[in-house]
Amino acid sequence: MQSVDLNCDMGESFGTWTMGNDEALMNYISSANIACGFHAGDSTIMRKTALLALQKGVAIGAHPGFPDLQGFGRRNMALSPIEVYDICIYQIGAMINVVKALGTTLHHVKPHGALYNMAAKDARLANAIAQATKDSDTGLIFYGLSGSLLISEAEKIGLQTASEVFADRTYQNDGSLTPRTLANAMIENTEEAVNQVVRMIKDKTVISTDGNIVPIKADTVCIHGDSAHALEFAKALSNKLKAEGLSVKTA
Amino acid sequence: MQSVDLNCDMGESFGTWTMGNDEALMNYISSANIACGFHAGDSTIMRKTALLALQKGVAIGAHPGFPDLQGFGRRNMALSPIEVYDICIYQIGAMINVVKALGTTLHHVKPHGALYNMAAKDARLANAIAQATKDSDTGLIFYGLSGSLLISEAEKIGLQTASEVFADRTYQNDGSLTPRTLANAMIENTEEAVNQVVRMIKDKTVISTDGNIVPIKADTVCIHGDSAHALEFAKALSNKLKAEGLSVKTA
Amino acid sequence: MQSVDLNCDMGESFGTWTMGNDEALMNYISSANIACGFHAGDSTIMRKTALLALQKGVAIGAHPGFPDLQGFGRRNMALSPIEVYDICIYQIGAMINVVKALGTTLHHVKPHGALYNMAAKDARLANAIAQATKDSDTGLIFYGLSGSLLISEAEKIGLQTASEVFADRTYQNDGSLTPRTLANAMIENTEEAVNQVVRMIKDKTVISTDGNIVPIKADTVCIHGDSAHALEFAKALSNKLKAEGLSVKTA
Amino acid sequence: MQSVDLNCDMGESFGTWTMGNDEALMNYISSANIACGFHAGDSTIMRKTALLALQKGVAIGAHPGFPDLQGFGRRNMALSPIEVYDICIYQIGAMINVVKALGTTLHHVKPHGALYNMAAKDARLANAIAQATKDSDTGLIFYGLSGSLLISEAEKIGLQTASEVFADRTYQNDGSLTPRTLANAMIENTEEAVNQVVRMIKDKTVISTDGNIVPIKADTVCIHGDSAHALEFAKALSNKLKAEGLSVKTA
Repeated sequence: MQSVDLNCDMGESFGTWTMGNDEALMNYISSANIACGFHAGDSTIMRKTALLALQKGVAIGAHPGFPDLQGFGRRNMALSPIEVYDICIYQIGAMINVVKALGTTLHHVKPHGALYNMAAKDARLANAIAQATKDSDTGLIFYGLSGSLLISEAEKIGLQTASEVFADRTYQNDGSLTPRTLANAMIENTEEAVNQVVRMIKDKTVISTDGNIVPIKADTVCIHGDSAHALEFAKALSNKLKAEGLSVKTA
Repeated sequence: MQSVDLNCDMGESFGTWTMGNDEALMNYISSANIACGFHAGDSTIMRKTALLALQKGVAIGAHPGFPDLQGFGRRNMALSPIEVYDICIYQIGAMINVVKALGTTLHHVKPHGALYNMAAKDARLANAIAQATKDSDTGLIFYGLSGSLLISEAEKIGLQTASEVFADRTYQNDGSLTPRTLANAMIENTEEAVNQVVRMIKDKTVISTDGNIVPIKADTVCIHGDSAHALEFAKALSNKLKAEGLSVKTA
Repeated sequence: MQSVDLNCDMGESFGTWTMGNDEALMNYISSANIACGFHAGDSTIMRKTALLALQKGVAIGAHPGFPDLQGFGRRNMALSPIEVYDICIYQIGAMINVVKALGTTLHHVKPHGALYNMAAKDARLANAIAQATKDSDTGLIFYGLSGSLLISEAEKIGLQTASEVFADRTYQNDGSLTPRTLANAMIENTEEAVNQVVRMIKDKTVISTDGNIVPIKADTVCIHGDSAHALEFAKALSNKLKAEGLSVKTA
Repeated sequence: MQSVDLNCDMGESFGTWTMGNDEALMNYISSANIACGFHAGDSTIMRKTALLALQKGVAIGAHPGFPDLQGFGRRNMALSPIEVYDICIYQIGAMINVVKALGTTLHHVKPHGALYNMAAKDARLANAIAQATKDSDTGLIFYGLSGSLLISEAEKIGLQTASEVFADRTYQNDGSLTPRTLANAMIENTEEAVNQVVRMIKDKTVISTDGNIVPIKADTVCIHGDSAHALEFAKALSNKLKAEGLSVKTA
């Protein structure tokens, strides 16, 4: 039976503020990327979210980001590669210990927001995050944008990687994401998004905005947890995957 | 040859601000308690300070504190025991990973400032810090105020402890520290302070402010690193210890 | 026509996280206490919330708190009176400027959470907040717990005050709030809460948990905005006040 | 008697960490740009620094920066113009109130570090800071890089400006600063730096790195306060200015 890894950002509440519907979404995913306190999450929420994932049998990943709570780690910040390395060692270490205290182990690392986007196009930043991941635990799987420098830099230093694709984003002829500045960057229709996922997994292709069939490496599919209809989408995707004979299993 | 562990708070700079003279002091101590980013320190300073300790052969400890940069972790904060547990798991985990990335291991944990002082008198807080230490690594040594709940609670759950005494503080008949609110709380004279340390190690006693000889458990001696004459004191103590045939060695 | 001032904490979202239903609640209140960035709120949310209040004709107040985002300013912190003075000057000043940029003026100051509760029982803290309010603008009205040191200390230095009572809290024979640690501290029943407000305004009394009629000074009534049924309560109270011939008007 | 305004960044300590030698430097400058708590400074340090300036007869300015304590506001951050406007309204407002509580008024605004540098080249950011300054108080003088968008955007909206030049930086033929990436960006020699200042004030020219005499608008000269020899430089400059018959006076 062919399988697909569904990953979702989790634990992005902070203090008394809540975000997303982690408890419900955990039922539909195989990998949880848990915020580590810099862009969202705090030490208490990390523990509660990791425990929830453990109870649901969902693989736990660290989701390090820029030190920017107010901007939710989505604003570019000009950190040097060594600074990026340091904040990743710190955040991944905190997450490893939260998970250890619960009697389990960390499964993967996926950078967040602006850190993810900047490093996808900057080899030095990508290397910094990958090296911090490797120095934390050589067995960790590195989640990054399919076809980007995140994946190639991580592979260069011998990390196992999971190439990430998006259910609700459109793709270009070269396999890259359509920039959000363009009108057709997002797939708003649930059925289209679900079908794109099935094609990506079964055929290892995606249909570009130009209508071409483009090869794509899809080890893990990102589900957005902070949108209003995240849960509905997760359910629809889950039903479709079952109907297609695809199981949901971590990378 | 009898030995004494000299510990010092280290890595308490932050960003572009510096504090203390870590590089010079590292030559005279055996255990460094490195700040973990909540009351002082940041991920870059943690790495640099841990590397320095490693190069000098100084045992590395985590020094978790309250999340209060402006107050340097010295202002009491009403965190619940589980919140204290969570912030300790987080900070100790970050430090463990910094140290792991440098190819070495964490040796001990010593809570900082208001967290240390509050927990010394509050069994639930002491238990929370000790449990977080144990859940991080059962082999970690727990540094806490000699004769306080920090030590007894840590021993209750099976942690190895190091009872901490102070070179520059006076003691009461019951072996407790003279409160800082009293005029005679501090030993300003270097020779007196040095002699107190030698007595504590050799005779396992201290002379109280009333002039009584009081038994005291002294596994580790705290050297303050942020005072103006910290380095001079460290040198004087080092010379005296050598003259007394005592070696400086970690607990 | 007799009037009552209904005040509500507002602008307690932070960054991408939202809290409460400010837009809807603004229709039912006369005074908005807007968070100033230390326990909640940020510079952008302050502007948006103040603009909303301005559009709805609601008086704008500053709602300064402890520097503790994660704890939402609800955890006691041991700040000295001068530190409290300084954080209030800072936060009130920021709020005054937000309001000035919108072309209006600040109406009142009400401290938040742990700062409010600690100062209600500590004359030096109460004086620090009141003095910071006066030094910011002698015309500001100082909102504080009815019968507490907040009110008496503010009056001592010549500030106009508004004695605050709570719709959903029960009272003791001496006019003080029933401590939350007691089972009967809260009024869960909407009708009871609404009736208590009407009595406080019309008769200037409250019925204590012992059943006694106790005099109380009620210049302003606090509506909690972060509870699930805040909006329902606000509507019920509004209807009842109209039926009783009471208008809602700022202090 | 011709005069020159010497400005210096001040109050850039934080909590228990100190930076610079504000007290000594205040004797040699006419304008203090005081950090507002986002990149450095805190509410207590703001008050103490403003009081010091007041006692020394130095004009007080607000020195707003990015919310990045660890990076000291020197790391570029991708904030939108409205976010920049909001953080400036907030920080300037806090500073205005600190100064009001001391019985005096704010004199100028100068943005800090990465905010200053980014806005010098970005009209929308420059406008955001200038507009926040104007909305805070139309009488504030706006300090910005001579010849940059900071000055032109501020003038466009009617603010009085002070064109800033640097004693220790070299200039290009077009009057712009030599980028720090080039070897000859800095003037290390005190005499050369002092002479450059005198020429800028007296002749309104600067000698470019190519040896050309270039016209420059120099309303205020920036003295760096965080360098090791800041005080020596300030003294040397002060002596030279006196010898040249130039008085030090705020813009």
